[in-house]
Amino acid sequence: MKNYSIKDIAEIAGVSVATVSRVINDNGRFSEETRKKVLKVIEETGYKMNYSAKNLRMNKSFTIGILVPDISNYFFSDVVQQLEEILFAKGYSTIICNTSRSSEKELAYLRILEGKGVDGLIVISGAEAFQFDSSSAEKKIPYICIDREPKKKEDTVFISSNHYQGAFESAEELIREGCQHPVIAMHNQKSTSAKERLKGFKDALKKNSISFNPKQHLLSIDIESEDFEHDLLNFLKKNPETDGIFSINDLIALELMLRLKKNHIAVPQKIKLIGFDDTPSGKYTTPTLSSVKQNTDLIANHAVETLLELINNKGELGRQIVVPVSLVLRESSTP
Amino acid sequence: MKNYSIKDIAEIAGVSVATVSRVINDNGRFSEETRKKVLKVIEETGYKMNYSAKNLRMNKSFTIGILVPDISNYFFSDVVQQLEEILFAKGYSTIICNTSRSSEKELAYLRILEGKGVDGLIVISGAEAFQFDSSSAEKKIPYICIDREPKKKEDTVFISSNHYQGAFESAEELIREGCQHPVIAMHNQKSTSAKERLKGFKDALKKNSISFNPKQHLLSIDIESEDFEHDLLNFLKKNPETDGIFSINDLIALELMLRLKKNHIAVPQKIKLIGFDDTPSGKYTTPTLSSVKQNTDLIANHAVETLLELINNKGELGRQIVVPVSLVLRESSTP
Repeated sequence: MKNYSIKDIAEIAGVSVATVSRVINDNGRFSEETRKKVLKVIEETGYKMNYSAKNLRMNKSFTIGILVPDISNYFFSDVVQQLEEILFAKGYSTIICNTSRSSEKELAYLRILEGKGVDGLIVISGAEAFQFDSSSAEKKIPYICIDREPKKKEDTVFISSNHYQGAFESAEELIREGCQHPVIAMHNQKSTSAKERLKGFKDALKKNSISFNPKQHLLSIDIESEDFEHDLLNFLKKNPETDGIFSINDLIALELMLRLKKNHIAVPQKIKLIGFDDTPSGKYTTPTLSSVKQNTDLIANHAVETLLELINNKGELGRQIVVPVSLVLRESSTP
Repeated sequence: MKNYSIKDIAEIAGVSVATVSRVINDNGRFSEETRKKVLKVIEETGYKMNYSAKNLRMNKSFTIGILVPDISNYFFSDVVQQLEEILFAKGYSTIICNTSRSSEKELAYLRILEGKGVDGLIVISGAEAFQFDSSSAEKKIPYICIDREPKKKEDTVFISSNHYQGAFESAEELIREGCQHPVIAMHNQKSTSAKERLKGFKDALKKNSISFNPKQHLLSIDIESEDFEHDLLNFLKKNPETDGIFSINDLIALELMLRLKKNHIAVPQKIKLIGFDDTPSGKYTTPTLSSVKQNTDLIANHAVETLLELINNKGELGRQIVVPVSLVLRESSTP
């Protein structure tokens, strides 16, 4: 009797190897018809299903886990949505875990995703450098970091937007529009993306012979705080020459616009404003909000492509992929 | 030798039964210290770990699956975020699957979640009545429907906002503010929530002696369509007396506001506007947007409570829980 391989089974049944695997593991997408067809071929050929099924189960689940800090954030949910679509089209299912920015939860979910046998992981954002060591030496789970600096660069591929470029171009745009005292508004300075944005902003000031002074050019402001408006007005009292604000994200930018309006400080006439993320809200405000748009489409495509390479033991580790951003100019930063 | 139970182990180790189970299954949250402590007690007592572990594994994974049609939608991501928080506090982990409103994906993810051994399912929204039959007769997986009508009411608990009330009160508010020709703007009429909202709107008109005529009172409009503005203007041309619009969701309401503004039709002076969902964008627009707020907090709490009851073979099936909504009045519907 011929020793049939899973490839043979797939060929005889007229389906893909992935489909045979899914039928054997009863995992994922196939019609009842396909299931019957594949099982019939397995029966007829005497294919050693159990052994292979076990083997397959150890090797492939066609499931990818995603760790995301906050799915109610527009940028995150947009990336996750796109990752899921691309992965599904390639025959992979996605399970998403929301860590609420808690490192305790992150650890718990990493264990769970590993326990559920995911083939790979995509980790999105977060304040501290990301570290993950598969608990089994037999099945090392490959992972990709999006906007999250990996602790061991040599273990992963690090994908991020060019945050530096977005901030640099925003600051330059404010200066080009006549701002002499541009300010960066931000809260958390710990994440890689925040650090890069701050660096880009500072470098643009330097290039334009403005010497960066935190007291004059850095508005430290927390969207969650009840003192938001107080902190803003306090800063403007100390720095009445402020004529442009680059906000590290649109959430802060929208809230700034609201509070400035409330205090009769005209945007863009008195203060020009540029945000980051290009959230949908920005096109409904008066004035409409200028913002830096991240290319989530390209980020998601790169992430899936490189992760599937790693899963198939191809692709080069230790790389960083930087995806360009674009400045979307609207009324809040133009005359 | 005494035959120790998992309860005894928990008591001796000074932890909960759930924690012992998690350590045995290496699933979820526990510190290294806890792990050592539990394993030491198991060793000392000679607790028959393997048998019980297998048993436990069949019975409890402390993982809940959530099916959501579109996590980039504010209401959905808000509910999911809250479900996760409440479940995590109760010792359960959550895995989220995004179905992109595709029934093919929904079926695939149901199989996958079942394969991953979730203890229960929460299904959010969707156009068709939801049907789910556990593939194993031994382990029936309990499920809760949020805003999604179940096909077999006797198998589940159905939780939803009082969509009827939200629409009814919105229409009454428009009429109270002087609108004589209120219109409902919507696209899809298939989902339970859409049907209920339409019904509430119609009944409010009836109560106020306005006879509902689809040609005059129903603006069928698709947010995804390029003809959005054309369809709006076309409707207003045929129905120039329109003086109030209740929009079935904020996405449509915001887009309506933008297009009306662009065509110099003043909101609220010429047309008053009320949306549904109270998305964050609504407070940044000019005028700010009136909207119906769903009580996601209460919905999430009811869902977790009833699901955990079902998992523990308590609680009554076949129930429907209707959660009241509240009308948040802002500038778009007031004089």
